[in-house]
Amino acid sequence: MRKLDVQSIEDIALGAPVLGTGGGGDPYIGKLMAIDAVSECGPVTLLEPSEVPDDALVIPTALMGAPTVAIEKIPRGDEAIGTLRALEKRLGAKAFATMSVEAGGLNSTIPLGVAARLGLPVIDADGMGRAFPEIQMFTFHLHGITATPMAMADEKGNAILLETITDQWTERIARAITVAMGGVAIVSLYPSFGRQLKEAAVPNSITMAERIGRLLRETKMRKQDPVQELLTLVRGHRLFKGKIVDVMRRTIAGFARGEATLEGVDEYAGGKFTIQFQNENLVAIKDGRILVSVPDLITTLEIETGLPITTETLRYGSRVVVIGMPCNPQWRTDAGLKTVGPRYFGYDIDYVPVEQRMASGG
Amino acid sequence: MRKLDVQSIEDIALGAPVLGTGGGGDPYIGKLMAIDAVSECGPVTLLEPSEVPDDALVIPTALMGAPTVAIEKIPRGDEAIGTLRALEKRLGAKAFATMSVEAGGLNSTIPLGVAARLGLPVIDADGMGRAFPEIQMFTFHLHGITATPMAMADEKGNAILLETITDQWTERIARAITVAMGGVAIVSLYPSFGRQLKEAAVPNSITMAERIGRLLRETKMRKQDPVQELLTLVRGHRLFKGKIVDVMRRTIAGFARGEATLEGVDEYAGGKFTIQFQNENLVAIKDGRILVSVPDLITTLEIETGLPITTETLRYGSRVVVIGMPCNPQWRTDAGLKTVGPRYFGYDIDYVPVEQRMASGG
Repeated sequence: MRKLDVQSIEDIALGAPVLGTGGGGDPYIGKLMAIDAVSECGPVTLLEPSEVPDDALVIPTALMGAPTVAIEKIPRGDEAIGTLRALEKRLGAKAFATMSVEAGGLNSTIPLGVAARLGLPVIDADGMGRAFPEIQMFTFHLHGITATPMAMADEKGNAILLETITDQWTERIARAITVAMGGVAIVSLYPSFGRQLKEAAVPNSITMAERIGRLLRETKMRKQDPVQELLTLVRGHRLFKGKIVDVMRRTIAGFARGEATLEGVDEYAGGKFTIQFQNENLVAIKDGRILVSVPDLITTLEIETGLPITTETLRYGSRVVVIGMPCNPQWRTDAGLKTVGPRYFGYDIDYVPVEQRMASGG
Repeated sequence: MRKLDVQSIEDIALGAPVLGTGGGGDPYIGKLMAIDAVSECGPVTLLEPSEVPDDALVIPTALMGAPTVAIEKIPRGDEAIGTLRALEKRLGAKAFATMSVEAGGLNSTIPLGVAARLGLPVIDADGMGRAFPEIQMFTFHLHGITATPMAMADEKGNAILLETITDQWTERIARAITVAMGGVAIVSLYPSFGRQLKEAAVPNSITMAERIGRLLRETKMRKQDPVQELLTLVRGHRLFKGKIVDVMRRTIAGFARGEATLEGVDEYAGGKFTIQFQNENLVAIKDGRILVSVPDLITTLEIETGLPITTETLRYGSRVVVIGMPCNPQWRTDAGLKTVGPRYFGYDIDYVPVEQRMASGG
């Protein structure tokens, strides 16, 4: 158990997008909401999953939809309290804590604001160990925990409760509701008990986001290049260094889809590199061949600042370093790869772990 | 108070589509479900709105979506019991009765099956006095009664509870859910208390459907043309008689939209007539000019049988009589016309009551 203060939130917001692999939303709004709540209500208690009683109910809070829209359609602030309360009411039990569903900008910080306002702890864990675009893409799903009952709300005051037969149906119906609500919704889903959490969640992700953020902040203060230290911290690999020469981006069926094309600089001069995304970066293609794919993490960092770039802020002319990181081992099982492997996203290739690919020369 | 037996259900199913103005779904499935339930559980009690205690809760049950889809995607049978129970749970009160939301094939008979299975009465009323395509198009809406809490379910077992800020938002979100569920959903909405019902509902619509059905059945047995007697019963007007020479129909955003073109026969020979619909018939156009429009009722009857034709069964070559009927007076108020008048549906004309138009020569 430890406390998260305003500095912790700043660091989490700075570091989480590295794990967000381009998704999870712009951290800015979530950070402001969390800092505002902590300034008003005091620091948030962060608990290890092992510190949660087996029968305690944990209700995650998150933003669902296209991050591109979230930038302009700002949550009112109390929707997540409403969705958490709606699940408490449905389940007939009070929430012991809230947590992040995914590691990524907005969805790492939204639960911090909710926790501060409600006086609840936040669990140092999430349901992906990164960000993914769809509702069934949770480690919880691999353990038979269902997304429903799930509560949704928008900033206008509309509220929906879903009880669906599979997580795929939840994705389909909740996605349609998100689009009808204007492209983004605040949600509570995958409510779970302490005993389930210990088995199913990806532990440590808030602390990891904070450590990454602190590293980025400190190397910036020291005017150092953060990439090498970052790669050591996240067991990552440098994939490419280049200039963005083209970005194609569309909001389709509630997702931000597209690709960014890079031309190499420095030691990568003459090389071509493409990143394709669906909210999150899915595959990194070097000279026409898929180099790294989901479920491993692909993140783009600005060369000048070392800061991670979300898919909705990729822009022509940016000079970037692309890094690859190994995903949580749960995703490398057969069930994991069936849920979030390259074939699920329509790529006809076998998954090869990033460290294996890089050991064989990239 | 009176009892509805199998013969009553047959007559209601036969007659309701005349009030359904082409919508409300094919009566066949709902009729079979209701007859099955009544055969198993006994006759259904039909109550006048005046017989409902002021504080008794009435929960309507209905099918939402494109009737075109409902023909092939048949309800399982117990979804409506589930949606009614979901609203009971949400409202913390038992349903005293169920009722129809609209007069029309499927939605006149679905509540009869639910009532038989649950041992509840059905109210001799509905929320439109005809069928309309959207959720805010209820006389209840004109009295400040909201569609929510609203429960939705599909035949697969998915269940959704909506609490929205306006009936227009309910329509938008529930329509998206209906499409995600595959085009049709079973719903319970506009729960109301006896005192609200007496003011807001359109009374007598089950009895009117039954009387129309009995007339059609008896004139068929006597091998008589039913149209003249029918016009007397519903205070209707003959608009046209012709052969369908073209039907254009698409399922767009959860609605069956399109138009049918007729060429006149007998005394209408040489005339052209078009009916445009969105699930229900919206306008009847004679020789290029709108003759009758929403909210008045436009219904197509087969010449050979006198049977009403729903928009999804309009077909090339059918010989039909088109009749127009005055709508419930609630729809002729300013608030009513704002909700369901021709301008709401995109027609830039003022509403002229059908009897006024016909008195001035059509």
